[in-house]
Amino acid sequence: MRFGIVARRDREEALKLAYRVYDYLKVRGYDAIVDSETYEHFPHFKEEDIAKLEEFDVDFIIAIGGDGTILRIEHKTKKDIPILSINMGTLGFLTEVEPSETFFAINRLLRGEYYIDERIKLRTYINGEARIPDALNEVAILTGIPGKVIHLRYYVDGGLADEVRADGLVVATPTGSTGYAMSAGGPFVDPRLDTIIIAPLLPLPRTSVPMVVPGYSKIEIEFVTKREVILAVDGQYYEHLSPDIKIRIEKSPRKTKFVRFTREIYPKYTMRIKERH
Amino acid sequence: MRFGIVARRDREEALKLAYRVYDYLKVRGYDAIVDSETYEHFPHFKEEDIAKLEEFDVDFIIAIGGDGTILRIEHKTKKDIPILSINMGTLGFLTEVEPSETFFAINRLLRGEYYIDERIKLRTYINGEARIPDALNEVAILTGIPGKVIHLRYYVDGGLADEVRADGLVVATPTGSTGYAMSAGGPFVDPRLDTIIIAPLLPLPRTSVPMVVPGYSKIEIEFVTKREVILAVDGQYYEHLSPDIKIRIEKSPRKTKFVRFTREIYPKYTMRIKERH
Amino acid sequence: MRFGIVARRDREEALKLAYRVYDYLKVRGYDAIVDSETYEHFPHFKEEDIAKLEEFDVDFIIAIGGDGTILRIEHKTKKDIPILSINMGTLGFLTEVEPSETFFAINRLLRGEYYIDERIKLRTYINGEARIPDALNEVAILTGIPGKVIHLRYYVDGGLADEVRADGLVVATPTGSTGYAMSAGGPFVDPRLDTIIIAPLLPLPRTSVPMVVPGYSKIEIEFVTKREVILAVDGQYYEHLSPDIKIRIEKSPRKTKFVRFTREIYPKYTMRIKERH
Amino acid sequence: MRFGIVARRDREEALKLAYRVYDYLKVRGYDAIVDSETYEHFPHFKEEDIAKLEEFDVDFIIAIGGDGTILRIEHKTKKDIPILSINMGTLGFLTEVEPSETFFAINRLLRGEYYIDERIKLRTYINGEARIPDALNEVAILTGIPGKVIHLRYYVDGGLADEVRADGLVVATPTGSTGYAMSAGGPFVDPRLDTIIIAPLLPLPRTSVPMVVPGYSKIEIEFVTKREVILAVDGQYYEHLSPDIKIRIEKSPRKTKFVRFTREIYPKYTMRIKERH
Repeated sequence: MRFGIVARRDREEALKLAYRVYDYLKVRGYDAIVDSETYEHFPHFKEEDIAKLEEFDVDFIIAIGGDGTILRIEHKTKKDIPILSINMGTLGFLTEVEPSETFFAINRLLRGEYYIDERIKLRTYINGEARIPDALNEVAILTGIPGKVIHLRYYVDGGLADEVRADGLVVATPTGSTGYAMSAGGPFVDPRLDTIIIAPLLPLPRTSVPMVVPGYSKIEIEFVTKREVILAVDGQYYEHLSPDIKIRIEKSPRKTKFVRFTREIYPKYTMRIKERH
Repeated sequence: MRFGIVARRDREEALKLAYRVYDYLKVRGYDAIVDSETYEHFPHFKEEDIAKLEEFDVDFIIAIGGDGTILRIEHKTKKDIPILSINMGTLGFLTEVEPSETFFAINRLLRGEYYIDERIKLRTYINGEARIPDALNEVAILTGIPGKVIHLRYYVDGGLADEVRADGLVVATPTGSTGYAMSAGGPFVDPRLDTIIIAPLLPLPRTSVPMVVPGYSKIEIEFVTKREVILAVDGQYYEHLSPDIKIRIEKSPRKTKFVRFTREIYPKYTMRIKERH
Repeated sequence: MRFGIVARRDREEALKLAYRVYDYLKVRGYDAIVDSETYEHFPHFKEEDIAKLEEFDVDFIIAIGGDGTILRIEHKTKKDIPILSINMGTLGFLTEVEPSETFFAINRLLRGEYYIDERIKLRTYINGEARIPDALNEVAILTGIPGKVIHLRYYVDGGLADEVRADGLVVATPTGSTGYAMSAGGPFVDPRLDTIIIAPLLPLPRTSVPMVVPGYSKIEIEFVTKREVILAVDGQYYEHLSPDIKIRIEKSPRKTKFVRFTREIYPKYTMRIKERH
Repeated sequence: MRFGIVARRDREEALKLAYRVYDYLKVRGYDAIVDSETYEHFPHFKEEDIAKLEEFDVDFIIAIGGDGTILRIEHKTKKDIPILSINMGTLGFLTEVEPSETFFAINRLLRGEYYIDERIKLRTYINGEARIPDALNEVAILTGIPGKVIHLRYYVDGGLADEVRADGLVVATPTGSTGYAMSAGGPFVDPRLDTIIIAPLLPLPRTSVPMVVPGYSKIEIEFVTKREVILAVDGQYYEHLSPDIKIRIEKSPRKTKFVRFTREIYPKYTMRIKERH
C-alpha cells in the first residue's frame, strides 16, 4: 500500500504530526510520499519521497489539517484517492479523527477496517469548456463589484428556474450545504443524497428561495447584468468573468472519497452546525 | 376504461363542469362514477353512478377543484388511482389543466397521450401503529397550546438530528415543499426527488435549520414537553396526542399519481411560488 | 421603605432565598410583605405579612425567579412598582443579578445606588375595550386551529400595513424583541427605543416582513378569516376570540420598571441571544 | 423662489420632462438652474442657467428620475435642499409623484401646499475623519474578496454588540430599511423613526441577527480580518480600506428633505415591498 501525506502548512503541530505519520509508515515498510508544499514548510522528509499533489498516485492520502487542507488536495490531485483526514482545523465538517487518535486510525486503515464515504462534486463549464477545478462544497457566482447586485437567470434542465437580482448565486453539493449555502438560507442536506442545492445570495425580493434539485440536473446560468462577475470554487479558486459567457454546472464524473470508521450522520454533522457560534 | 369524478363542493362552476365531464364520458360509452359528496351538492347525476370515495375502484379520477379537492381524494381512496386535475382553486400547485382545457385534456387521456407523475407520501406511526391518513404534503406536529412552544427531539435513522423548542415540526414531501415547510424556511424541493424535508416551526434559537434527508430515512420524534400536542396531516386531518407517545414517520408504500401532459418542472412550479403574494 | 417579595413557586432554592431576603429586611427594620402564592408553597413567613400580588402597594418588589416570575408580577400588580430581579431561571433576559449577589444588590438598593430602567408595555383593546393584561413582551394573535392559517389585515395609524395569511401575528415591545418576535424573524430592538415590532408568524408568501413602528402608533387588526382566533399575552394569558371582533394595540400608559445597577446594554443582551442554543 | 432641476441622464423622457419643467418655471418668472450633467445629455437649456450640483443654492430641487437620481443629488449637494421627486425609475421608494402629475405637483408646491419629510442620514468616520459622503440608505462594509468572509466586531455606544464572520455588515437608516438591509433579513422600519439598523450579511452562524438601535447611537466597527475591505455608501460611492482602520458611524448633522403632499406611510411604502418581485 502506498500513502500520500499532506499537512496544513501554517501550523507546526500539523507538520510535526505529518512527520510522525511518515516515519510510522516507513518503519512498517509502507511507501509514503509527501506533498512538496508540506515539505517546503518542514524540510525534514527524505527528498526522494517528495512529490507534487498533482502527481500523487497513491492508495490513500493522510491529510493533517482542516477543511482547507482537504480542499487543497481535492483541487490539485488528478485521481480520486481516498482521504483519511486528521482534524487540525477549527471546526472540521469533513475531517474524521482527532490528532490523539491518529495512529489508532491508521492501524484500523491498515487492517482494512474502514469504509469509503463518496461525495459528489460539481463541474463548471464556461461556454461549454471545463477548465475550472471541481467543487467539493460549492460554486459561487458573485458580483464583481461588492454591493452592486447582479441580475441573472438560472435554468434547471432547460427550464427557467428563477430570475433574480442578488449579490450572487451559490450552487452547492450536500457536503457544501453546511457552508456558504447555509448562510444563504439553504437547508442541511444529508450527505447520502445525490442532490444539488441552488441558493441566491441576499436576493430582493425575498420570494426567491433556495432549491434542491436532482444530482443529474443540468444547471445553466446566464447574465442580464452587463458587469463583470466572479466565480469562486470552494472559497479557494477565483476567476473574473465577462457577463457575456454562459455557465453550466453539473455533477462531476469525479468523486471525493473519505476514509470513515463510522457511518454515523446524526448527530455528527447536525451538532457541528450548532457548535459554530 | 372506468372514470371517477370528484368536484369541489363549494363552487357551482366546479359542480357544473363535473356534470359536463360525466355526460361527455357517458355519451362516449365510458363508465363514470361520481363521488357521493359531489352528488350531495349537485344531485343531477344518475343515482346508480354514485359511490363513496373510499370505494372508488376506477382507472382514473377526474378532479375538478383545487389542492383541497386532491387532498380529499388522497385521504379517502384506498387505491393509488391516477388523478387528472382541473384547476378550480386559487393557485394550484398540484393541478394540471385550466377549466377551458378540460375536454382537450380528457381526449388526450383517452388517446393515451399522457404520463404518470408519481409522488411520494408519508406514513405516520403512533407508537408503532399506522392508523392516520398518509400525507401528500406534510405531517405537522404542533403545540396543543398556541403560543406555547413544544420541546422535542427528532432522530433520523436512529441518530439524534436535533433538539428544539419551537411552535412545532413539519415533515414534508417534495410535493409539500412549497407549502407549510416553505413558510418555515424550507427550500423548494424538485418533485422528482425521493427525499423528505424536516423543518422546525419558529425555533429558538435560530441555529435549528430545515434539513433534507433521503426518502428511505426513518424519522422519529419524541417529546420532552409534558403538554398535549396536535398532529395535522395536509392541513386536513387533525388529532390531539399525549406527549408520552412516540411518532415515527416514513415514506408510505402508497404513492399519489397525477396524469400529466408535460414533464415540465421549471418554471411551472417555481413561478407559482412567486405568484403567491 | 416597604418591600414586596415574590418567588418562583416551583424551585425550592428560590423559595428559601425569598425567606432569607424577607428575614434580612425584617431584621433591619424594613416592612416586607410576601406574595400569597409564594407563601402557599413555602408557609414559613409570618401570616400578617402575606398579601395578594393584586394588592401590593410597596416601594420595590424583589423577584426571585426567571422571566416567568416577572411576567406574573406584571400581569397582576396594579401599580408600576420597580422590580429588583434575582435570576433563578434558565436564561433571564429581564433579570438583573445572580443569586450569589442577592444581598450585595439589596444593600446597593438600600443605599440608593441604582437607576430605574423603564420599559414600555402594550395595551390591547377588544372592540375598544381594555380588559386584557398589558403585555411586557408581546401580544400574539394566533390561529385557533393549529396548522390552519389565519387571514388578517393590520393597519398602522389608519393605513393598511399588510394583509397576510399566516399562523398568526406578533406585536411586541423592544423587551419582547428577543422572544417570540425574534423566532418570527424580527430584529433585536434596543430596549432604550420607544418602538413597537410587528411580525407575522410563518407567512406565505415570504414578502410579508417584520416591521418596526413608532411607540405612539395605533395598530389595528381585523380578520378576513371566519374561524376563532386566540390572543396570547406574554405566553401567560390566553383568550379565545371570535373573528368578528376588532383588535387595537397601543402603548400602555403603564410601564414596567426594573432596578438596574448598570446602564449596560451591549453585550449584556446581545450575548444572551447567542447563549440560547 | 429659486429652483434646481436634475434629471436622470439615461432616459430621454426624463431629460425632455426636465426641459418642460425648466420652461414652465422660467415662463412664470422663477429662477431655474439646471444640473451640469443633465445639461451634458440634453444641451438645450440656456448656458447661463447651468450649475454643478455641488454649487446648487436653491430653495427646491425638482428631481426627475428614480432613487439613483436622488442619491446622486444627496451625495453632491452641500446644502439640505428639499427635493420634489418625479418618478422616472422602476420602483421608487423615495419618489413622490408620477410624471403625469408633474405640473399639478409643481403648482401645489408654488402655492405652499406641501410638507417637508425629513429623513436622517448616516455619517462615516474613518479613523475619526469624516471625508466620505453621508448615506441616505446605508453604509455597507463588504469583503474585498467576494466569497471570503470578513471577521469583524461591532460596538454600540462602547459595548460589544456582536462579533461575526460574514460577507459584510450593513448600517442603514429607516429610509434604507427597504433596500440592502432588507435583503440581509432586516425589518421594514417606519420612516418616522429616528433609529439605525445594523444587519450582518450572510453571517455564519445564524445567531447573529439584525438589530435596531437609537438614532443617537455611536456604532464602531473593527476588523479581526487582515484583508482589505470595501466601504460602499448607498451603492454609489466606493472605497477600498485597509483592515487596520476603525470605522465609526453616527447620525449625520445633515438631513434629506423631501417635498410631500401626503403624510401617508401605510400602505404607501409597505405595498412597494410586495410589488418588487
